[in-house]
Amino acid sequence: MSWIYFVDLLGTCIFAISGVITAIHKKFDLIGSLIIGFVTAIGGGTIRDVLIGRHPVGWLNDRNYFFAILGAYLIAYLFKSKVLQFRKGMFLFDTIGIGLFTILGIDISMSYNLNTEVCLIMGVVSACFGGVIRDVLVNEIPLIFRKEIYATACLFGGIIYLLLNELLPFKNLSMLISMGSVMVIRYLAVKKGWSLNIETS
Amino acid sequence: MSWIYFVDLLGTCIFAISGVITAIHKKFDLIGSLIIGFVTAIGGGTIRDVLIGRHPVGWLNDRNYFFAILGAYLIAYLFKSKVLQFRKGMFLFDTIGIGLFTILGIDISMSYNLNTEVCLIMGVVSACFGGVIRDVLVNEIPLIFRKEIYATACLFGGIIYLLLNELLPFKNLSMLISMGSVMVIRYLAVKKGWSLNIETS
Amino acid sequence: MSWIYFVDLLGTCIFAISGVITAIHKKFDLIGSLIIGFVTAIGGGTIRDVLIGRHPVGWLNDRNYFFAILGAYLIAYLFKSKVLQFRKGMFLFDTIGIGLFTILGIDISMSYNLNTEVCLIMGVVSACFGGVIRDVLVNEIPLIFRKEIYATACLFGGIIYLLLNELLPFKNLSMLISMGSVMVIRYLAVKKGWSLNIETS
Repeated sequence: MSWIYFVDLLGTCIFAISGVITAIHKKFDLIGSLIIGFVTAIGGGTIRDVLIGRHPVGWLNDRNYFFAILGAYLIAYLFKSKVLQFRKGMFLFDTIGIGLFTILGIDISMSYNLNTEVCLIMGVVSACFGGVIRDVLVNEIPLIFRKEIYATACLFGGIIYLLLNELLPFKNLSMLISMGSVMVIRYLAVKKGWSLNIETS
Repeated sequence: MSWIYFVDLLGTCIFAISGVITAIHKKFDLIGSLIIGFVTAIGGGTIRDVLIGRHPVGWLNDRNYFFAILGAYLIAYLFKSKVLQFRKGMFLFDTIGIGLFTILGIDISMSYNLNTEVCLIMGVVSACFGGVIRDVLVNEIPLIFRKEIYATACLFGGIIYLLLNELLPFKNLSMLISMGSVMVIRYLAVKKGWSLNIETS
Repeated sequence: MSWIYFVDLLGTCIFAISGVITAIHKKFDLIGSLIIGFVTAIGGGTIRDVLIGRHPVGWLNDRNYFFAILGAYLIAYLFKSKVLQFRKGMFLFDTIGIGLFTILGIDISMSYNLNTEVCLIMGVVSACFGGVIRDVLVNEIPLIFRKEIYATACLFGGIIYLLLNELLPFKNLSMLISMGSVMVIRYLAVKKGWSLNIETS
């Protein structure tokens, strides 16, 4: 499953960059922004793992997540202004990231024999709660509670994945279609002017 | 133990309604208020289960909690104005709910062979920390830290339950008396004018 | 390892006092400040234990932590003004506390066969996240994100400990040197005028 692993690390990296940039905007120091980058990147998956009883939590046993976040941290500081220019690219990667996080979250939960609706919730938690923790720590009301595109896209992508998983014999195809649907939902949301809402926080 | 299970689901439902209504007041969107309803209803029990090492967390394996919260969500939106009219009834159910949550939290903790004082803490955590998470997520200082009636009633009800459990051979009777004492403490608090404090947040 | 256990309880006590005093300043009630004292004292270790899968969480099985926190609570209320006078002594104990918490956090994580960098992270989490939860609950941006001395001292002390552990055959000596280095880093930070930053929150 090498492409999945690669996209997972890429998503982790993008989430960490978003955390570090938020922290820099809030005038956090070097350690503070590193911590915010970390919790943004691994927060959602950590809550999922704790809730379903996966021990130790996933990223503890895989150095690559650690290095992905450290790399993101360096990128965010070294190319601060550039990163903001690449906002469009970031949005693309971020959307790929939440799509994959949702689906991986569902897959991991299904391997623990949980009910379908719980797996769906865990998918949304995996994709969204890193950002929730980030916002709580910088003392803001979490973004996803005010602007629903983000969580809604995950929710629909997750439902599509659960349906396709029943209907299609090809797991990779189900994954790609579901991730694509998350991207389409977010893209349409942006096209229809909801993007302004997303940018305001 | 069917009456306990029924009251547990009713308490979950009431807690979820309180979360959804808080979220609506904060102008959260549909997904945001659903999430707030969820964490308010299952937050306390989740923290307890994570701390005592009960895996997976209780509500993950029981669909009825899921449906109780979904039902609460629909009720809160469909009967928004009515719900506020039934504030008195809500207060009653809420008090029954925290009484039962405290006692069920203590019982579950005792089945894990924890010290008495830890079981008491877990009872209070079960009843109060859903509301704490709700308040943190909507960026307010948690209500129970400023107005002590809520947590205090749970604490005393829990102590009474622990004592009765030693003295009485009838578990159901101990439960009913302890839950009653939580209700009496809160009722007296309201009668003596402390209710204003509770309403201010 | 009796001196370690003693310092651990002393650190728990000091952390609890800092939590209770923060809560009193925020005009929290008796139960609210007790809860803040509790989570400040055991929050960091609790998050560490949950993440590495240590169940039940450490303090649940040791009454002495409970009594250390209750004692701290009484001290904080009975000697409120005195406690503020002994700020210097508190700073000393607090620094000893975070040094020890960092090192104990690393040790416990190493006994779970986690990667070196994960053990280091867990050390910092053990020492710092009690304060992070405290600040989130009183609705402040966590102190350690804005002033880096605190977390930085833990990070460096932790790195020194990991190095000495490889080089020296005497565990106690490694511990004392690392704890000493945390204290020196914080002391130098204060001497060089960074203390003002620490006091501002």
